Amino acid sequence: MSFSPLINHLIESLRCLPGVGPKSAQRMAMHILEHDRSRGASLAAALAKAIEHVGHCDTCRTLTEQTRCEICSSAKRDERLLCVVEQPSDVIAVEQSGTYRGRYYVLMGHLSPIDGVGPDQLGLPQLFNILAAGGVEEMIIATNPTVEGEATAYFIAEQAKPLGVSVSRIAHGVPLGGDLDLVDMGTLAHAFKGRTKIS
Amino acid sequence: MSFSPLINHLIESLRCLPGVGPKSAQRMAMHILEHDRSRGASLAAALAKAIEHVGHCDTCRTLTEQTRCEICSSAKRDERLLCVVEQPSDVIAVEQSGTYRGRYYVLMGHLSPIDGVGPDQLGLPQLFNILAAGGVEEMIIATNPTVEGEATAYFIAEQAKPLGVSVSRIAHGVPLGGDLDLVDMGTLAHAFKGRTKIS
Repeated sequence: MSFSPLINHLIESLRCLPGVGPKSAQRMAMHILEHDRSRGASLAAALAKAIEHVGHCDTCRTLTEQTRCEICSSAKRDERLLCVVEQPSDVIAVEQSGTYRGRYYVLMGHLSPIDGVGPDQLGLPQLFNILAAGGVEEMIIATNPTVEGEATAYFIAEQAKPLGVSVSRIAHGVPLGGDLDLVDMGTLAHAFKGRTKIS
Repeated sequence: MSFSPLINHLIESLRCLPGVGPKSAQRMAMHILEHDRSRGASLAAALAKAIEHVGHCDTCRTLTEQTRCEICSSAKRDERLLCVVEQPSDVIAVEQSGTYRGRYYVLMGHLSPIDGVGPDQLGLPQLFNILAAGGVEEMIIATNPTVEGEATAYFIAEQAKPLGVSVSRIAHGVPLGGDLDLVDMGTLAHAFKGRTKIS
């Protein structure tokens, strides 16, 4: 025994969302059908529209429904700086930090040969074309501080060497507001190695 | 700075789901757009279809796209038993316990005067009509063991008195697999009061 077919299908479909198990999916379906049909309908419309229209920026590969994203189209950005990140949400995170005024390149993942993700899937040929075209003076690699992110950063830095662009990696260290004895050994080792003089 | 308008709208819309905050909504939107567009599209369709077609069963008020739900239409059900529950998901829970073969009546909530939920909103006139029509010998009230659920149960039992139907309430007590010293006082008091002889 279970719900009627349409409700069952809705519960099943909600499970495509990350972090949604059978119980949450059921709660979500009941909530929408009992209390929030108008917002549910607008969610369905927003979902269908985003799936239909959102593609990738021609230049930086981030997710957008425009041919060229807002940052790539902006004339106010410093073209001499290029920041390489894994995900579109990383762009938002860096933007919110408020310290960077250059352009971005979004890999949409990291190198993972076992999943069939190589340089082509990350758009690296296009990235190297941008660097080869000149104009970029420094490439800041801001992939995640994970094994895969580090490997991807190293690979990109190696390949970019002949192109004469200065390549840097964001600093690893103790996060602000963190508790020193809760920070892992690797991070602490990085924090000591990358120490800066107090002037 | 944020995502492009369509992506922002999708993230905003996802927040209508219970338990979904800004970070989860962003993760969900990214997951669908990057990895799971076909399932995302089928979720949008399932949502729109359920919202359009799902209504209430004519007889028991549960959520269904049929005029009369499967249980109410079934000839195999014992018409002499009527179980009153708060939510459609409670029907599923009772069904899964496998011990009940009667019919249901779904209140779609509990009495809550402060929120404007009175007897009419819970369909109580229709419930008393069913009882008055005869055929039901026992009404089992299985509203939630909360203050509101208890008040609703008491109100229904009082109102049903003149109709000559035997009214019962599901047992409160120690849940199976529970730890006795973790059970609250009220439940334990109920468990002692409702003790049964070991024959």
